[in-house]
Amino acid sequence: VTDEAPVVDLVQRLAIADLHDAWHVLDIQERVEGFRALSHSEGEEFFSELPTADQIALVEALAPAERRLWLRMLAPDDAADLLQHASEERRCELIAMLDEPVRREVNTLLAYAEDDAGGLMSTRYARVRPEMTVDEAILYLRRQANQRLETIYYGYVLDNRQKLLGVMSFRDLFQAKGASLVRDVMHTDVITIPEEMDQEAVGRLFAQHDLVALPVVDAEGRMKGIVTVDDIVDVVQEEATEDIQKIGGTEALDAPYLEVGAREMLKKRAGWLVVLFLGEMLTATAMAYYQEEIQKVVVLSTFIPLIISSGGNSGSQASTLVIRALALGEVKLRDWWHVMHREIAMGLMLGCILASIGFVRIIVWQSISERVHGKEHSLYGDHWLLIATTVSCSLIGVVLWGTLSGSMLPLLLRRLGLDPASACAPFVATLVDVTGLIIYFTFASIFLAAQLSGAS
Amino acid sequence: VTDEAPVVDLVQRLAIADLHDAWHVLDIQERVEGFRALSHSEGEEFFSELPTADQIALVEALAPAERRLWLRMLAPDDAADLLQHASEERRCELIAMLDEPVRREVNTLLAYAEDDAGGLMSTRYARVRPEMTVDEAILYLRRQANQRLETIYYGYVLDNRQKLLGVMSFRDLFQAKGASLVRDVMHTDVITIPEEMDQEAVGRLFAQHDLVALPVVDAEGRMKGIVTVDDIVDVVQEEATEDIQKIGGTEALDAPYLEVGAREMLKKRAGWLVVLFLGEMLTATAMAYYQEEIQKVVVLSTFIPLIISSGGNSGSQASTLVIRALALGEVKLRDWWHVMHREIAMGLMLGCILASIGFVRIIVWQSISERVHGKEHSLYGDHWLLIATTVSCSLIGVVLWGTLSGSMLPLLLRRLGLDPASACAPFVATLVDVTGLIIYFTFASIFLAAQLSGAS
Repeated sequence: VTDEAPVVDLVQRLAIADLHDAWHVLDIQERVEGFRALSHSEGEEFFSELPTADQIALVEALAPAERRLWLRMLAPDDAADLLQHASEERRCELIAMLDEPVRREVNTLLAYAEDDAGGLMSTRYARVRPEMTVDEAILYLRRQANQRLETIYYGYVLDNRQKLLGVMSFRDLFQAKGASLVRDVMHTDVITIPEEMDQEAVGRLFAQHDLVALPVVDAEGRMKGIVTVDDIVDVVQEEATEDIQKIGGTEALDAPYLEVGAREMLKKRAGWLVVLFLGEMLTATAMAYYQEEIQKVVVLSTFIPLIISSGGNSGSQASTLVIRALALGEVKLRDWWHVMHREIAMGLMLGCILASIGFVRIIVWQSISERVHGKEHSLYGDHWLLIATTVSCSLIGVVLWGTLSGSMLPLLLRRLGLDPASACAPFVATLVDVTGLIIYFTFASIFLAAQLSGAS
Repeated sequence: VTDEAPVVDLVQRLAIADLHDAWHVLDIQERVEGFRALSHSEGEEFFSELPTADQIALVEALAPAERRLWLRMLAPDDAADLLQHASEERRCELIAMLDEPVRREVNTLLAYAEDDAGGLMSTRYARVRPEMTVDEAILYLRRQANQRLETIYYGYVLDNRQKLLGVMSFRDLFQAKGASLVRDVMHTDVITIPEEMDQEAVGRLFAQHDLVALPVVDAEGRMKGIVTVDDIVDVVQEEATEDIQKIGGTEALDAPYLEVGAREMLKKRAGWLVVLFLGEMLTATAMAYYQEEIQKVVVLSTFIPLIISSGGNSGSQASTLVIRALALGEVKLRDWWHVMHREIAMGLMLGCILASIGFVRIIVWQSISERVHGKEHSLYGDHWLLIATTVSCSLIGVVLWGTLSGSMLPLLLRRLGLDPASACAPFVATLVDVTGLIIYFTFASIFLAAQLSGAS
């Protein structure tokens, strides 16, 4: 039997893999057919790996008898996740299909917000009592294992009022002397998760402590459930995706790229793009003020894209670094002073580097141009040194301002209770574009005062 | 004892938390002192949660006797991680401090690249033999538990040649009849990780399958070790951070924001910023060609920032969406045709939306301006309709081009075997800036041909 098994597995794996690959191009009826063609165990595996939105669509497209079957297959926390995504009227109908004890658990879990620790947790954990012996505890856990527990890596020691007293890992139990009491060998320094903790914070806790499961407790220290690390991998992945999409200037898609409908996709992208476009219109307004300057020294206009993009690039660097550091908890709000200090220094240095390159570039182009066209008709004309100075000073100003506003805006957003990632990077770019123009033409009016005031 | 324990824990937790908070402002000597002030168990917890770079620095600053103590405390896979980050000469010295069996394991692990599955894995897993009974297996595992196993959630069934035959979870063992043979009750459809699989792919595998541990096997199916999900949370977090930083236009920092030295930080940020600056210089070159056009219709210059930033924003939207979809495995290289199709449609629609807003904006401003200054001296003069048409057509062209190049460049980079995230988003912005200017002035030369050809 053992020798043949891998072949059967391979065929099974292929069938699932095929359906998986074709999934996003199939319509709902084809999906149902493909799904029905799977064996029961294949179907179980396939179903459990589908995104929740697809699970619902599939369940809703099945015949009522099948629907009941697949719903009952789910662990209570997965069922609750699924029901959370179903429409209001569907939800009641689906809940009615569950068995009584599962229904009660699912209803409890539905009471939590999906992004809270409570929404992530499972209520199926292994309990032991403090006055048991180790041998009794092992036997007791062995009996509980039959009830489809989420994890049995830890036994949680609870008193009569469900208060969490301590925890014992399986390894602890196996290593302890059989006759000793659980209360004497349990760990009492338990890291717990408050039930309303945000899932991003829960993810950080797991990343920091390298644990397999953490207990969720209420304000009185009563055990409510456990969160297991396998659910956390998804959470961490999901939160990072949201942040990346927001940094790129879209709303979070909340679904795989190829599976988002065209209308939905357009809505999520057009929204921010229009907001940013309206912001950028201020550049046209600003530019209108400087038309006369451009008319007089038209060469000034050639550096506009260079100046504003340098500000934008340095701003998005600073803002993404700070957004990520905030998300990982590496930087806290109280560090703002430290961050500002650091970014001012960084902005000055980066600005000076770019300014030097820009200065050299203008000198080189000018000397080539002089040799070809003669001094009078050269690229930057007589006042090339003043132009080079204007551009260099503007670069320092713009990069410094970009770095500073890029690093401070995420902190400000967090301070206001908003999500620092929300379109922050492109927002900074837009802000820096407008102010960059003002900085540039201000320096121009200083260094090129004579040229700009002369009659045109 | 139980009643007092939480108070002691709280004090302990505070001491660790204080040191943790102050860590980044302490110099190495202060860090050593703070670390020494912790109790042994506190120290153990604190040490294990430090980033690897800090662990090395701390270990190197300790006295040799202490150093030996802390090194021996580490699990072999953590020790291997630490040694990988130590300097070449230090490494041999530190390895010599380990006990013989651990040393052998660490040397095996050091042979793998850090980012491979082999570099993530632990060699301390629980083995059972196919011919054991379930009761024997439980007893046997209970004995193995004393050897500081990484996980004992699964027992791996190996034959004489270390080939992986199947797996049994603890729950399976506890549920099975005590007298049945392991070979008859084990699962044979095991998901395995090839030893050279990239850690990002390993992360996706865990996210998809919701498992606690996966076995690593070589090409012949021989078991080499296990990867546990608690290490995967870090991997997923780390990979997302790298991608976010690259999308923001920096090299990956590889350390917490506040802990990166100023010189290191400047190097990682200045590099890309200079590359992008050199790229943006092409805009100045392009603009130099259009000086005459600007001189004749100076109002054209006022829309330059608006046009190029719209291209940049739509490009960075498209590129971040595709980069993330590639990283999550939602989009594969072979989907390029599908993606291109979709992004062309998206680019056209987004372009039309922005173009309409731009058109309306020019009409509104113009009519206000006409009312205030009279037709002749109004903002866009006689040919305002031609200008509005030029701007709108350019917006469609630029947004379409931004969306298209933004979505295709990550796929191209992946095709060339490069990292799609590497400065892709700002690269796209720079590319789009230069081409955006060309698109704009090309449309201008079409619609404003009469105005541009007239003598100035």
